[in-house]
Amino acid sequence: MSENMSCTAVVLLSGGLDSSTALAWAVREKGWDCATLAFDYGQRHRIELEAAARVATALGVDDHRVLHVDLDAIGGSALTSKQAVPKDHQDKSVIPATYVPARNLIFLSMAAAFAESRQATRLVIGANIVDYSGYPDCRPEFFTSFTQTLKLGTKAGVEGYETNIETPLIHLKKSEIIAMGLKLGLDYSLTHSCYDPSPDGRPCGHCDSCLYRRQGFAELGRDDPLTYAS
Amino acid sequence: MSENMSCTAVVLLSGGLDSSTALAWAVREKGWDCATLAFDYGQRHRIELEAAARVATALGVDDHRVLHVDLDAIGGSALTSKQAVPKDHQDKSVIPATYVPARNLIFLSMAAAFAESRQATRLVIGANIVDYSGYPDCRPEFFTSFTQTLKLGTKAGVEGYETNIETPLIHLKKSEIIAMGLKLGLDYSLTHSCYDPSPDGRPCGHCDSCLYRRQGFAELGRDDPLTYAS
Repeated sequence: MSENMSCTAVVLLSGGLDSSTALAWAVREKGWDCATLAFDYGQRHRIELEAAARVATALGVDDHRVLHVDLDAIGGSALTSKQAVPKDHQDKSVIPATYVPARNLIFLSMAAAFAESRQATRLVIGANIVDYSGYPDCRPEFFTSFTQTLKLGTKAGVEGYETNIETPLIHLKKSEIIAMGLKLGLDYSLTHSCYDPSPDGRPCGHCDSCLYRRQGFAELGRDDPLTYAS
Repeated sequence: MSENMSCTAVVLLSGGLDSSTALAWAVREKGWDCATLAFDYGQRHRIELEAAARVATALGVDDHRVLHVDLDAIGGSALTSKQAVPKDHQDKSVIPATYVPARNLIFLSMAAAFAESRQATRLVIGANIVDYSGYPDCRPEFFTSFTQTLKLGTKAGVEGYETNIETPLIHLKKSEIIAMGLKLGLDYSLTHSCYDPSPDGRPCGHCDSCLYRRQGFAELGRDDPLTYAS
């Protein structure tokens, strides 16, 4: 892939329900020429990387890449260590053990570098604050501040090409996100949401991510195409 | 290394003159218990990673780690690609080809994650704006904005543990940085500054980094302990 390739937007694509919907929005609703980035950061649910590749292909993205980042060497999260992933837990007043220190900050920073090398002026991230599971780096005020930091700390920013952070799902409930994706023809059987899949790859059904997903489909009165372990 | 180890400060240590001096300042002047981070990001001057390890050992750091980050997969810089490293070039009015998109942003974001997992409240970076070679991510306004972004986007920030970015060299000329390090007993023969070393590891003497270093030692009337290729 040439370093001089350009695109309109760089989309963070984990292969989960939210980021896949955000990509469908960028490609099919906005019509942007998108490159996608997935991150191999030592997450125990690395199976999501396969989902990311499937979704990128299904949505016609021809510049999808997986970047390695050593977050497991840093530690501090149930997603990258031997700490247990919490189950059947919906207390939004505390930041859960699945929080990964500075994850979106690191991912967006790398996406900003990638965007700069592609002359892309938009970064798309499927964060949302309604069912957001208590992560501080999914809040609008974080994205606003990050945009300002980019403006000051990158060549693109200094030269006047502002990089916009696009958060199309930020105020949507999970059921509304799914409704958006279905309307855009996204096949949710390609996506993967579970933090703690069984050895055969089936979602656990009980981690925060599974709970929100199942609740979203149920509220919408639609069947989730995934088969849960329990 | 236990994930529960704590320290006072996390220092970005490339093994170059500036970051090594910043570490000497943190350890010997401030007396902080420091962990150090070096980054293997596909830089053509990877020999600096050996220098980082030497300097960390010399300054008594027992938690030094090298994190891998896929910046070479992103491209956009002479430091991570086959673009030529500019030589004998001191035009500060343009951002040079050795600029790596969002490098300090990415490194500081990873350092913030590491600091959070160690309950460290200080990040030390040897950036300076006097001889800064035109990099936007070395400017004080960038660090101020980044501090605010961290406060909003991390668990530590939300819980009220502000992470301070310490830039002890920010207003110093190269000769003043070297004077500081010598006063603190730093052995500059352990450090490596060149962006484009010869195959046997000797510094080229003509890239921006070599030029500023040589000029700094010359201004101070001290010998640079390194042997240059030319």
